[in-house]
Amino acid sequence: MSALAQAAHIREENSRPDAMREQLRQHFHSVRGFTEELCEPLEIEDFVVQSMPDVSPTKWHIAHTTWFFEAVVLARASLGHHPFDMQYAYLFNSYYVSLGERHCRPKRGLLSRPTVAEIYRYRSYVDDAMEQLLDVVNNDELMHLEPLIEIGLHHEQQHQELLLMDIKHVLAQNPLAPAYVEATKEWKAREETGLEWVDLAEGVQEIGHGGGGFAYDNEAPRHRVYLHPARLAGRPVTVKEYLAFMEDGGYDRAEFWLSAGWNWLNEEGIQAPLYWFRTNGEWRIFTLTGMRSLHPDEPVCHVSYYEADAYARWAGARLPTEAEWEVAASPLTIRGNFVEDGNYHPIAMPAAASDQPLQQMYGDVWEWTSSHYSPYPGFKPLPGPLGEYNGKFMANQFVLRGGSCATSISHIRTTYRNFFPADARWPFTGIRLAQDS
Amino acid sequence: MSALAQAAHIREENSRPDAMREQLRQHFHSVRGFTEELCEPLEIEDFVVQSMPDVSPTKWHIAHTTWFFEAVVLARASLGHHPFDMQYAYLFNSYYVSLGERHCRPKRGLLSRPTVAEIYRYRSYVDDAMEQLLDVVNNDELMHLEPLIEIGLHHEQQHQELLLMDIKHVLAQNPLAPAYVEATKEWKAREETGLEWVDLAEGVQEIGHGGGGFAYDNEAPRHRVYLHPARLAGRPVTVKEYLAFMEDGGYDRAEFWLSAGWNWLNEEGIQAPLYWFRTNGEWRIFTLTGMRSLHPDEPVCHVSYYEADAYARWAGARLPTEAEWEVAASPLTIRGNFVEDGNYHPIAMPAAASDQPLQQMYGDVWEWTSSHYSPYPGFKPLPGPLGEYNGKFMANQFVLRGGSCATSISHIRTTYRNFFPADARWPFTGIRLAQDS
Amino acid sequence: MSALAQAAHIREENSRPDAMREQLRQHFHSVRGFTEELCEPLEIEDFVVQSMPDVSPTKWHIAHTTWFFEAVVLARASLGHHPFDMQYAYLFNSYYVSLGERHCRPKRGLLSRPTVAEIYRYRSYVDDAMEQLLDVVNNDELMHLEPLIEIGLHHEQQHQELLLMDIKHVLAQNPLAPAYVEATKEWKAREETGLEWVDLAEGVQEIGHGGGGFAYDNEAPRHRVYLHPARLAGRPVTVKEYLAFMEDGGYDRAEFWLSAGWNWLNEEGIQAPLYWFRTNGEWRIFTLTGMRSLHPDEPVCHVSYYEADAYARWAGARLPTEAEWEVAASPLTIRGNFVEDGNYHPIAMPAAASDQPLQQMYGDVWEWTSSHYSPYPGFKPLPGPLGEYNGKFMANQFVLRGGSCATSISHIRTTYRNFFPADARWPFTGIRLAQDS
Amino acid sequence: MSALAQAAHIREENSRPDAMREQLRQHFHSVRGFTEELCEPLEIEDFVVQSMPDVSPTKWHIAHTTWFFEAVVLARASLGHHPFDMQYAYLFNSYYVSLGERHCRPKRGLLSRPTVAEIYRYRSYVDDAMEQLLDVVNNDELMHLEPLIEIGLHHEQQHQELLLMDIKHVLAQNPLAPAYVEATKEWKAREETGLEWVDLAEGVQEIGHGGGGFAYDNEAPRHRVYLHPARLAGRPVTVKEYLAFMEDGGYDRAEFWLSAGWNWLNEEGIQAPLYWFRTNGEWRIFTLTGMRSLHPDEPVCHVSYYEADAYARWAGARLPTEAEWEVAASPLTIRGNFVEDGNYHPIAMPAAASDQPLQQMYGDVWEWTSSHYSPYPGFKPLPGPLGEYNGKFMANQFVLRGGSCATSISHIRTTYRNFFPADARWPFTGIRLAQDS
Repeated sequence: MSALAQAAHIREENSRPDAMREQLRQHFHSVRGFTEELCEPLEIEDFVVQSMPDVSPTKWHIAHTTWFFEAVVLARASLGHHPFDMQYAYLFNSYYVSLGERHCRPKRGLLSRPTVAEIYRYRSYVDDAMEQLLDVVNNDELMHLEPLIEIGLHHEQQHQELLLMDIKHVLAQNPLAPAYVEATKEWKAREETGLEWVDLAEGVQEIGHGGGGFAYDNEAPRHRVYLHPARLAGRPVTVKEYLAFMEDGGYDRAEFWLSAGWNWLNEEGIQAPLYWFRTNGEWRIFTLTGMRSLHPDEPVCHVSYYEADAYARWAGARLPTEAEWEVAASPLTIRGNFVEDGNYHPIAMPAAASDQPLQQMYGDVWEWTSSHYSPYPGFKPLPGPLGEYNGKFMANQFVLRGGSCATSISHIRTTYRNFFPADARWPFTGIRLAQDS
Repeated sequence: MSALAQAAHIREENSRPDAMREQLRQHFHSVRGFTEELCEPLEIEDFVVQSMPDVSPTKWHIAHTTWFFEAVVLARASLGHHPFDMQYAYLFNSYYVSLGERHCRPKRGLLSRPTVAEIYRYRSYVDDAMEQLLDVVNNDELMHLEPLIEIGLHHEQQHQELLLMDIKHVLAQNPLAPAYVEATKEWKAREETGLEWVDLAEGVQEIGHGGGGFAYDNEAPRHRVYLHPARLAGRPVTVKEYLAFMEDGGYDRAEFWLSAGWNWLNEEGIQAPLYWFRTNGEWRIFTLTGMRSLHPDEPVCHVSYYEADAYARWAGARLPTEAEWEVAASPLTIRGNFVEDGNYHPIAMPAAASDQPLQQMYGDVWEWTSSHYSPYPGFKPLPGPLGEYNGKFMANQFVLRGGSCATSISHIRTTYRNFFPADARWPFTGIRLAQDS
Repeated sequence: MSALAQAAHIREENSRPDAMREQLRQHFHSVRGFTEELCEPLEIEDFVVQSMPDVSPTKWHIAHTTWFFEAVVLARASLGHHPFDMQYAYLFNSYYVSLGERHCRPKRGLLSRPTVAEIYRYRSYVDDAMEQLLDVVNNDELMHLEPLIEIGLHHEQQHQELLLMDIKHVLAQNPLAPAYVEATKEWKAREETGLEWVDLAEGVQEIGHGGGGFAYDNEAPRHRVYLHPARLAGRPVTVKEYLAFMEDGGYDRAEFWLSAGWNWLNEEGIQAPLYWFRTNGEWRIFTLTGMRSLHPDEPVCHVSYYEADAYARWAGARLPTEAEWEVAASPLTIRGNFVEDGNYHPIAMPAAASDQPLQQMYGDVWEWTSSHYSPYPGFKPLPGPLGEYNGKFMANQFVLRGGSCATSISHIRTTYRNFFPADARWPFTGIRLAQDS
Repeated sequence: MSALAQAAHIREENSRPDAMREQLRQHFHSVRGFTEELCEPLEIEDFVVQSMPDVSPTKWHIAHTTWFFEAVVLARASLGHHPFDMQYAYLFNSYYVSLGERHCRPKRGLLSRPTVAEIYRYRSYVDDAMEQLLDVVNNDELMHLEPLIEIGLHHEQQHQELLLMDIKHVLAQNPLAPAYVEATKEWKAREETGLEWVDLAEGVQEIGHGGGGFAYDNEAPRHRVYLHPARLAGRPVTVKEYLAFMEDGGYDRAEFWLSAGWNWLNEEGIQAPLYWFRTNGEWRIFTLTGMRSLHPDEPVCHVSYYEADAYARWAGARLPTEAEWEVAASPLTIRGNFVEDGNYHPIAMPAAASDQPLQQMYGDVWEWTSSHYSPYPGFKPLPGPLGEYNGKFMANQFVLRGGSCATSISHIRTTYRNFFPADARWPFTGIRLAQDS
């Protein structure tokens, strides 16, 4: 059973606590185990480095996700729990003001201790406590704890993606350009077909999460929106297309850029997507499988909102709104190039996607929408500390949709709202065009 | 005839060029003259200072608005025009990349020359050229130039408000706390009535500018939106109400704040609205008529989006969306406390507004909406340089509505979209609450 | 009688209070009047601008020097004094911590008020009070106040030079490149003679101020130093010589530079002395008489210590120590190109200086020495607030000697120790070479 | 044979190449081995972190010192040498511009690779190459290479001290306050005797290195200086004495501070020496053996020049010049608390030192002198890349003398000139007072 189906199944079984208990245990094992699997290729030294304030060291990620279960589940359970180390709440709380003082984010890379070995001991200790909890908790309390455990697992999946984003950023700073893993699949060029467009009808539509299965608070409530006639591109923008923009002076022509974007690119000296390096007149790209040539037909990746928006303007198009994206995506089956595929990079048009009119909507690259990240009408944050999970970031960020090659397939949903500031480039971000019609 | 009526009249007369020519001439005189009127209380030294990068020196404003007519109208007219000084395009272009290189914004306050006297000569020179143009241009070209002249006049009105915002900021840096003008009206306390709420119905509504009369490109096209059931507060938040928030620890409790807002207030050490100063345990306020005690019943002013949003959350409410604001405001007559009233500060509930269920929607304070500033569906920027006027700022800003005590009544419209970043406090910004219903 | 002779004369007359009183009055008038004379070419707007934190607005200088007499002389006199404005001590105290709180230095340019006219009223008020004091004070108190008045006048002369340095920096920021005054003298090229060297003997020598006439505390006590055999260049480095350094890649070759200097030039993008601008392949220079071509034979000016030191290393030489400079200068007559000459810029070898083996030691350019600014053995700062005048700056600065074209001839002394940080370029600084022999 | 005696012996044996060869080999082993000994207590994670730009990761130090032998010795030897990795010259060159491009200093902590294990392989590779070189090189070339090898070993000893300074800074950032090693000796309070003073006679003296044994270029040439009558304190300032300064408001009273120091302490919020932490009203100190109470009689450590200078002024004294220090120290035997003693912190008056009138001149703490770091008269930097070793730092630094508890006894000399900027506190710096007499 796939991880996605498994998660759905847990929900269906809501009224049958014994099955739920077992499935929760399996889900817990599989998600926690996957984090450790992702760390296997790393050297101890790799776990320590923080390459910019937005990046966290790997060992911080694996401790923080563990602390999350201590603080959100174990601390509330009737069973009682003795924390592994009283100072870890300070070191590994990320941004939950209501859960107490915490270590300064940009200084996470200054901590050589606890060691990686110690943090793995911490993980085992908490995993054991969770195991025990799932054994002994009664059904009533289990029903109460289940959503907290589930959010802890979705939280861990988000950090799995962050871990890959962050370790990529760390390795990319290194003049030795070390690979996270060796590429295992041979690259096959695919002839790109011309760009096709898919129409969206005008009128009142519904978007947002309406109950049934897990969702974050920011995806609710399901509500009506008015869509204007538009069309969406049948696939993401490719490297070859983006190179045409660059060769047409895209980065030197203010007319394509938002004012803030133009200032940003001039201050930062941006001339290409993140992780593109120009050597002897040739663009090369750093990926989690090392430095290599560009593959023209794969989706362009690691662009900021500003670049996505400028590209769209150059192309005589625009970015879709998040409502347009969701309405278009909702009939589609969720499949694509996700982290479980082990590519760790977007790939050229996969054969498996070819029977859907909109291709690669899920996986490969997070698609920038033109929608600022704002509350849905009637939005209510979760009560307590988890209310800080999403709502407090609703200013000056843009929504991205669909998941990426670094996302778990069991983590993504049609209604899933990811968000980043307009200048963020270290997520696996890409571009899908839209047009008024 | 009021300036507002006059502007409307010009439009009605569209098909009668002679009347239009005359009314355009009068409109030009009245707007250009008002800029100079606003400068009368100033000393020469006041024209020079730039107190932060967002602020421009007064003499820059009066030169820039003049250059705008040179660059946008005179340079395109068949009559021909010899610029007053070839270097002024460099010095007084604000942000129009397509109109050439320009002087660095944060360095505007480093220029002692041209002197104020020289800039007034520049104004006269351009006014004379405009005068001559209006005399000699034929009817066909006049029809073509009229929208450019009109945008030049609306542009100048925006700079009149900026001029007041900016000179207030300049004078407020001075330990001598000099007043722009002496207060001419005596302050009368008014008993605040309890806060009333006005309901908004659910359903598809239309907002945006649909033609007829002047509007900026960002107000169009008129389009449908889906509104959810809500209600709007009958008046803006008052100083007394805001003090209650402060006394309840508003600035010290993270739970009310957006994450970016919480970081901002801690980094900047914010403890009160801009221009509030605590002396011997008492809050005092700096206004354009000098330093004085707080007036509890007047609308709170000079708050950031972050403060407005935090206040609303504390009050168990939220900010309105711009669509909610516009739908609610559209039946109302535009009247209120505008710059022509000479108060230069929001005032307590004016009697004149009392027969409208929603009071002080226009004038007094710009009201923060919860809407990020984004393009309307089908938005098309103006062609040419004027396309840079609005569209390129559509990221990381919030929309404000309704005008302020520093806005001209003839400048505001129901569909008018002002916008500022979330941390801007030097505009005359205030708060109107909304709630889901 | 020259200003210099007049100052000396005052001292001689020490035992004759009536003559001293009269000469002090004349000295006061002449120095105070010269400040106002220097301001005559300025527009009101010029008085306001602060172009960098090190620069003060002209109106600040003319108020600060006035406050100095209020704080240091009038406040201590038995006559009593009612300050012109109680807030001026806050606004116009520079750095005297013991004289109370003061306005933040980098914000001096944010103050449009008090106006220039008001500050001139302040000057008159204090001048009148000083006048009255000199009329009525008895001889005993006069003997006590005389050194304070004298330090106030020397202080004012320092600010006259700062005023010229600062207004030059302000005008240079302006793309219009306005001149402070028009050049009145025609430039005459002079054939530069080859560089000659003057020997200095080894052994114990004395330097420092030993009493007799005014000096700052940092020039005392006179003390012994051990000099090693060396020689000094017969004149300052010229523009032509400095261009040869530039053309030889001087700014691109790390081997000539101190590490801190190399970092500085790379961070700041330095490629030439301050106020040199490259237009169409030609270097031009901004001076107080406007923008013009380089004059190859005049001393190079506005170089940092780093540039002076790098030039010297390129030339196979070094900078002199301050002891070497003073021992070499002490037999020379003080004459040269000073502010009273009205050139406001160093000039090519003046005929008048030609009978001295070391030319242009005084005037033209302040000469960087290799000596960090440190206390002389046995140094004692003045008691009270004036103890803050010099001693507290004795870290991370270098000593400069000899005065410049912006210094008053009556202000300079053989023992005079000027000091600036190694990256300062806005003083009129130049280079004299030395070598071990 | 002690390391110091061993080094001296090598020199004596200059004319006997075989003995020199053997002793050089032993010296090389002992210095290189000590670096690795210092690393033994560390976890792999500790090798990676850079806690501020001045700090380098431990693994950088152990690679850089190895590269030094490759670049300075092996690359010049006739034997030939194949570098371990061609990219290491880029990664591990510190500041030698003449040895090619290098990695940006503040980014050393971003490199997780090469791993610690790989760098140890690098060390072995280079050690083997050096071994082989010492085996096969002929006597003539050996005479030529010997000074280069010796400078490489002194360089490595400097980095041993830096390694301890840096790892202390890294561990101190960690809220867990991990110790580098456990304290092995019990602390014994010693009754501090009153401060005694030792007189220095006036007159011409000689300082500097005159040949015989190893010295850096900045210590030469030996030359004459003129000393004025003075006296030196018999021991460094203690923690108890420094606390009295703090309790007397030392950090709040501007009158004791250099202007730059006063700005520094206010900007940085400095209230105590580095590594002092106030918890529950008690000062505690972080040392390489962990967090503990203050020991009142041990020398105060980790103070900046500004603090040393302010303390001296408060105490009615001053800091010694470097000439005073050297003349006073030259008759003394070099002994004291050095890194070989394994205290890793200054200790209270050691009994062993009690028969010298000036105690603790060597070891314990580097003593700030009032002398800016400047070239001695006749200074000539070494030819080639090693000319960058010292001379290019001669601006805006102060000289420190005598070595510390983190210095090797075989590394220090009477003429040794250490230097740091005035705000540096992470070296083991302390205070010895002087006075005019």
